Amino acid sequence: MNQFINTKETLVTEAIDGTLRTSGGQLVRLDGYPHIKVVVRRDWDKSRVALVSGGGSGHEPSHVGFVGRGMLTAAVCGDVFASPSVDAVLAAILSVTGKAGCLLIVKNYTGDRLNFGLAAERARAFGVRVNMVIVDDDVALPHSPQPRGVAGTLFVHKIAGAMAEAGADLDRVTEAAERVIDGVVSIGMSLDTCTVPGSSKENRIRPGNAELGLGIHGEAGIEQVDYRSAREAVAMVVERLAPEVGSGPHVALINNLGGATALEMAVLTEELLKSSLGTGIQWVVGPAAMMTSLDMQGFSISLLPLGSTEDDALHAPVAPRAWPGCSRVGQIELMPLPDGLTPIQPIPSRSPETAAFIKQCCSILIAAENELNKLDARSGDGDTGSTLATAARALLDALERLPLADLTQLYRAIGLELSQTMGGSSGVLLAIFFVAAGDASARGAGLVGALKAGLDRVQQVGGAQPGDRTMIDALKPALDALPDGLVAAAAAARKGADMTATITQARAGRASYLAAESLAGHNDPGAEAVARLFEQIAARLEAVR
Amino acid sequence: MNQFINTKETLVTEAIDGTLRTSGGQLVRLDGYPHIKVVVRRDWDKSRVALVSGGGSGHEPSHVGFVGRGMLTAAVCGDVFASPSVDAVLAAILSVTGKAGCLLIVKNYTGDRLNFGLAAERARAFGVRVNMVIVDDDVALPHSPQPRGVAGTLFVHKIAGAMAEAGADLDRVTEAAERVIDGVVSIGMSLDTCTVPGSSKENRIRPGNAELGLGIHGEAGIEQVDYRSAREAVAMVVERLAPEVGSGPHVALINNLGGATALEMAVLTEELLKSSLGTGIQWVVGPAAMMTSLDMQGFSISLLPLGSTEDDALHAPVAPRAWPGCSRVGQIELMPLPDGLTPIQPIPSRSPETAAFIKQCCSILIAAENELNKLDARSGDGDTGSTLATAARALLDALERLPLADLTQLYRAIGLELSQTMGGSSGVLLAIFFVAAGDASARGAGLVGALKAGLDRVQQVGGAQPGDRTMIDALKPALDALPDGLVAAAAAARKGADMTATITQARAGRASYLAAESLAGHNDPGAEAVARLFEQIAARLEAVR
Repeated sequence: MNQFINTKETLVTEAIDGTLRTSGGQLVRLDGYPHIKVVVRRDWDKSRVALVSGGGSGHEPSHVGFVGRGMLTAAVCGDVFASPSVDAVLAAILSVTGKAGCLLIVKNYTGDRLNFGLAAERARAFGVRVNMVIVDDDVALPHSPQPRGVAGTLFVHKIAGAMAEAGADLDRVTEAAERVIDGVVSIGMSLDTCTVPGSSKENRIRPGNAELGLGIHGEAGIEQVDYRSAREAVAMVVERLAPEVGSGPHVALINNLGGATALEMAVLTEELLKSSLGTGIQWVVGPAAMMTSLDMQGFSISLLPLGSTEDDALHAPVAPRAWPGCSRVGQIELMPLPDGLTPIQPIPSRSPETAAFIKQCCSILIAAENELNKLDARSGDGDTGSTLATAARALLDALERLPLADLTQLYRAIGLELSQTMGGSSGVLLAIFFVAAGDASARGAGLVGALKAGLDRVQQVGGAQPGDRTMIDALKPALDALPDGLVAAAAAARKGADMTATITQARAGRASYLAAESLAGHNDPGAEAVARLFEQIAARLEAVR
Repeated sequence: MNQFINTKETLVTEAIDGTLRTSGGQLVRLDGYPHIKVVVRRDWDKSRVALVSGGGSGHEPSHVGFVGRGMLTAAVCGDVFASPSVDAVLAAILSVTGKAGCLLIVKNYTGDRLNFGLAAERARAFGVRVNMVIVDDDVALPHSPQPRGVAGTLFVHKIAGAMAEAGADLDRVTEAAERVIDGVVSIGMSLDTCTVPGSSKENRIRPGNAELGLGIHGEAGIEQVDYRSAREAVAMVVERLAPEVGSGPHVALINNLGGATALEMAVLTEELLKSSLGTGIQWVVGPAAMMTSLDMQGFSISLLPLGSTEDDALHAPVAPRAWPGCSRVGQIELMPLPDGLTPIQPIPSRSPETAAFIKQCCSILIAAENELNKLDARSGDGDTGSTLATAARALLDALERLPLADLTQLYRAIGLELSQTMGGSSGVLLAIFFVAAGDASARGAGLVGALKAGLDRVQQVGGAQPGDRTMIDALKPALDALPDGLVAAAAAARKGADMTATITQARAGRASYLAAESLAGHNDPGAEAVARLFEQIAARLEAVR
């Protein structure tokens, strides 16, 4: 079993039941499982023309998904790719048809024509008014006397549905349906076949090929063509459609045959609108899965010429959620980029004291490069030392352009500098640290407050907590102790860094994927870097005193 | 290339453009392609809290599909499965945020946390109020300190979106988002991996297996499990979810990971509602593709406990069509089957003359069985003779129970008899012929009129026209000539039948698939049967005279 079903035999009834239970009370079904699988809109009072459609299952959301106000009155479901029986269609007709009569909307497949046709006759023998229209929109074979009915059927559901809902009589609804059928053309293309439940998948389409002009039952397309790109695919489809339609205006229905991704469908849509037919397409329905062929990775385009009196019916609101609406095609509107993306370069300012401090810090990190790398090789990719040293070198290079005399601006400038020169997560986290510190400083925070604000933000964004074996294990105790002086802070940082050697279950970062034995006894390189920084600054400060 | 795209590099921008052009003017985008891919709702006036989400592409309709009134203000798109840059997120924030501030809704993936996090810092440095929440709903690893953010994110978009739309301030919107994040749990399952554009597909999941507890970037699930049925699949998912939630009430979000069919999703829905968690599920969102992983044939279930003050926000109307609404789970309501499905058996009546006529017709068809089969072997499966002979024998058997004295009822009874005893298309077409004839007779048509009504219906339903090399080529001229007597009708039928031997391009039925050479010089077997029927009845009538 390679599908989320239970058995082939119960597939359709289980799916219908699932759909009914989540329809928000909009749908009911006829008794009579498993033979009779008919779904009816709940709010139906027989006062208007009933619209009944259906056919084999495997085309979802067709047809149950289009039952509801403004579209179908009832859907008659067969098993997968198999026409429903005469009895099932007859049950639907007799259940929903009042004095206003009933229109059967049938796709041009022999089984459907016959079963719906005989059901119509039997219903007429009861004195029920039944008309039947046959949708044959497929132009895969341009001169076929019996074109298939495919996704263009949706236009019939929609336009006849809106008219019936508005109270038009059976003849008018039928005529409108026939006008749609006369006008609509469709063609499909696919990169793969579909998987019929209970059958193994046919590998008919060679790699690098596509099938053009296919139906919705997994039957082979009219031809296999070379497939190179979405653009060429749409060009082939357009080439088949163009001779069948005028220059527009048209409404296009862009149908996902089931297995194309939303990204693919959006690219195909863009290509269609940019194609030679594009300028004539004023409205679109979709892209959406409307008339599928199970999981087929394909699409179809249907075009309906506009300009008839029934155009309004396309836009009438409907209850079924599967109808994606009809949207006017528009140009792409651009908003200008906001100011502030290109960071304003800080105005450099001088402070020998701050410059000396930064140089000190940088030289400490540069000196520790190899040892930190070795520590990181235990738990990561061995580059913590180099990453920090690279950042330190970049800061040294930038020293002349930094606003050294303004702490708030300095934090922010360091943050920007690091985000532009350091790669990877650690660069972004350090940048966040300094930008957040600058932000806090701007709000009036002092040195410790600003650094703590930076740490808070790093914790929030990075998701690491104390005890997770990260640099936080040294930095947080150091900042907590900093009000008591640098020596206290350095001691706290060292204690925290050494503690990381006992954490054998890392909870964040790369080390979280590693086994305990490779971590035990070795400090986290980030925490070790912080500890060395505090220790050596404190030591030099002491030395100066 | 096995996908409908042009190039990997242009995929996302082309898809966004296609989406914008068919958004009905609801969406605009920031300038700045290809680096900055930000989609903004057009009707945004910055008067309320802005909601910005995003992440890598490949999760469509997330996130662009949820931009609009009542949900997101802007979506920031990265390349497929790649976080957008800091600049892109910052551009989005600065473009849409007014005095009310901005909430960033971020899924718990390192790249997204860091890029959104740094962008938030940089925006704050401009004095913009920005909060950020991290969604971590995945319960694949029950005690993971860093659970992934998956489809449960949709609940955050919806609830925070409704509150922001209603004018709640940034703190309230943030708190509501955090309450949703605290409550929501999700888990996914898949039968196949996804196809990353430009990469070959990984065949990681063995046949007969499924992956349980997967993310939305094609990464391997927490475990591979035996897969047997939709029911067992849902049971496994429920087993993981149940310990994380109370007994309800819940709202369930049933998400298609991209490549599951609508039938599969409906079956999974039914199984979820029938599962041990089912009674607690009062509302459902979906089934629908909301947070996909390209074309992954999988699903995820998210559960959010109800009962907070924000429940109403779930139901508020929204503009984005990708939101499938929140439906109350209901029982399945059954409509009784209509009367009339079990045909009323006609009341038998006697007419020696009619009985003799029917016997004559039947014996003619039975006698012609082999010859008609041989003719049919030229163009079909060689069973026309047997099909008609079987029908004739069935009619002879039924003779005693037919309403022979009432022509209207007799037509209908023959139609029913044939539809019940004959297989295939020809049985249904003959049944339609007789039921339609009965219907016309009931409306007052005479013999010829009734038979012509039958023929009209067969043409409509079967789709064959004169000249299509079918029985119609004999029957139609025969009925046209019938007012002039049986001899004239027989001559017309013969002429029509013989004419079919010259039709080498069949346009309907099985013969339409055959080459001309196999048809030339041979009468269509159906037309031949009609001709023989008329000829021999006429001959016997003459003999009697």
